[in-house]
Amino acid sequence: MSELIKELVLKNGSKIVLLVMDGLGGLPRETGGKTELETARTPNLDALAAEAECGLHLPIGYGITPGSAPGHFALFGYEPTEYPIGRGVVAAMGVGFPLRAGDVAARVNFATRDEEGRITDRRAGRIPTEKCAELCEVLSAVKIPGVELFMRPVKDYRAVVVFRGQGLSDQVEDTDPQATGVRPREPKATAKKGERTAEVAGEFVRQAGELLRDRHPANALLMRGFAELPSIPSMNELFGLSAVAMPVYPDYKGIARLLGMDVIDDLVSLEDQARALRDNWDRYDFFFVHHKYTDSRGEDGDFEAKVAEIEKVDAFLPSLTAMNPDVIVVTGDHSTPAVMKAHSSHPIPFLIRAERIRPDETREFGERACARGAWGVVPGKILIRLALSYAGRLAKFGA
Amino acid sequence: MSELIKELVLKNGSKIVLLVMDGLGGLPRETGGKTELETARTPNLDALAAEAECGLHLPIGYGITPGSAPGHFALFGYEPTEYPIGRGVVAAMGVGFPLRAGDVAARVNFATRDEEGRITDRRAGRIPTEKCAELCEVLSAVKIPGVELFMRPVKDYRAVVVFRGQGLSDQVEDTDPQATGVRPREPKATAKKGERTAEVAGEFVRQAGELLRDRHPANALLMRGFAELPSIPSMNELFGLSAVAMPVYPDYKGIARLLGMDVIDDLVSLEDQARALRDNWDRYDFFFVHHKYTDSRGEDGDFEAKVAEIEKVDAFLPSLTAMNPDVIVVTGDHSTPAVMKAHSSHPIPFLIRAERIRPDETREFGERACARGAWGVVPGKILIRLALSYAGRLAKFGA
Repeated sequence: MSELIKELVLKNGSKIVLLVMDGLGGLPRETGGKTELETARTPNLDALAAEAECGLHLPIGYGITPGSAPGHFALFGYEPTEYPIGRGVVAAMGVGFPLRAGDVAARVNFATRDEEGRITDRRAGRIPTEKCAELCEVLSAVKIPGVELFMRPVKDYRAVVVFRGQGLSDQVEDTDPQATGVRPREPKATAKKGERTAEVAGEFVRQAGELLRDRHPANALLMRGFAELPSIPSMNELFGLSAVAMPVYPDYKGIARLLGMDVIDDLVSLEDQARALRDNWDRYDFFFVHHKYTDSRGEDGDFEAKVAEIEKVDAFLPSLTAMNPDVIVVTGDHSTPAVMKAHSSHPIPFLIRAERIRPDETREFGERACARGAWGVVPGKILIRLALSYAGRLAKFGA
Repeated sequence: MSELIKELVLKNGSKIVLLVMDGLGGLPRETGGKTELETARTPNLDALAAEAECGLHLPIGYGITPGSAPGHFALFGYEPTEYPIGRGVVAAMGVGFPLRAGDVAARVNFATRDEEGRITDRRAGRIPTEKCAELCEVLSAVKIPGVELFMRPVKDYRAVVVFRGQGLSDQVEDTDPQATGVRPREPKATAKKGERTAEVAGEFVRQAGELLRDRHPANALLMRGFAELPSIPSMNELFGLSAVAMPVYPDYKGIARLLGMDVIDDLVSLEDQARALRDNWDRYDFFFVHHKYTDSRGEDGDFEAKVAEIEKVDAFLPSLTAMNPDVIVVTGDHSTPAVMKAHSSHPIPFLIRAERIRPDETREFGERACARGAWGVVPGKILIRLALSYAGRLAKFGA
């Protein structure tokens, strides 16, 4: 099917906006109650839903809880299971590190250890990003023969390390024990071809331990998600879209870069994103606007705060519709119900508004309303196809 | 996808109950009328539906009428077309015969023939099971060089034969002509590798004919569904579920054993099944409770009697909910509308109740109500994924 789409793609200068509220889908707090989205006062989203086709989507499949990367892959029209992306790569791309084929990246947490080497805090007291940057600088003194090493701060206590050299592979287990009171694990190869990388990572941890000895609370480090750069066709190759991403959070920049999108940096608020949209309107076909905090508040278990984030996005919406995009898609990459404090497998409401659609009877943007919408429950990756089609960007198939 | 699920499976001690009313789906007797399920007074099922996510499922695909085995395979999370199970294997497993790889099993009907060898009754006057057992004993005198032969009674006039030896294969046609007034067919190979088995079956029929000569009305036998044991991963391998089956009917025991489930024997009523559920509650993760007679009454064309069977299951339901399973799924393996006196391809209503679900607006358990439920029409095999997910037994996919 993806080969077929590629053949049918047309270019016509139309504009598509994808607005993602991360972790949008929710659950009621009590039986028969309303979800976060159903609770939120969202006059602008409701008005858009009334003019739109609505439904629910599943990014990966029935019963599968999506991580952020596969959830977004689906929204961008990719089959997520075809492109498993390791955390290390997402993190490196997120901070704009120019990964090369053969590089191995891993997420690093600065952590606290006691005198016996046991982890007492997996997040080093949540040191600020500036401190993290300073420590990355310190660790650039690590020298490993035959390997170039790059350390970059991500956010707070999180950083990313990239190893570059011959014969490296991502077949290495996490060193993060995911618990306190125990020592970090030794880097261990999961396959023969990971052995060299496990040695390199072991040497890195050893030297880092010495360099961080007096840096309490950040006197240790934990590694997760060893990953290599996968080969992924760009959105332009697949869909003929020149695409730009406007996320605030680094991880989503990483995902966007992986798919060949340009990324607008240094955005910190919805106002910034609105301005970036205006400033870049003439330069692209596809605009990815991402709001992280719906997911963050869901993960916190703070129902009311998640409602408030949805309402913020609703207030932002007019600055998006004011651009008169040919197609607007509003949805999430997965559900993060506040009652679960975690991602979940529940389908995610979406709306798609364009001139040539067949509006359904949905009059509000919410889980149950969208369940009665025109589309029912669909795979997440087809949303881009609807968008292309309603933007006049897909030719007829067959005579 | 099934490889993915396997990787994501977690174990957490949660309990999942699958309650199957065989042939549940139905049709109205007249245009605009109600189906069997819609007609039945089902206060307990309706209350459960109100707290559940509802929908319709298709075990195999649009327009395909499922047999019992593939219908159940789908419910247990298997793609039915990947595992075609011959009737002979189902029958042999059903009576607990320890089939081995390479064995060939076939269903046997005792039948009545006239002096010219023409079949006058394909069911031998529906002889009782005891008589069937006695005749199986008689037929154990059959001797075929190089082949071990096992006969086992199933129920009434039905039995199963198993051939064990070198070079056997299930590539043999039925001998049952599916009509009276004609002779049984000769066993015929459908492929070269079935030739030896066709010879063996021919010799078996010949010797059996002699041994049964004076056993009117059971003086002949018809063979159907030559089958070999397929290799199927167990529910434990695929889904990490230690599973137990509580059917009354032998065939469903066979299916359960094929998938590595333990089987509770000697259950004859819903009361027995309720007791078995209580007695085994601490020993398993997954409980398959099966009610056969909804299908039987549908096959009989007895609308009212099928309604009554559904009401019996409704009355049984409190003994199931009293166990407080983490997830309850109630559905059927296919439709058996009384007006058709046969299985049909119509989708089957289902409900799934768990703590962390998003209840829809379904307030009763019925075909039309479920069609408006949260899920629309889904493939049957995904129900197990929803159950695993809502039981907290599937990890997040991807970073």
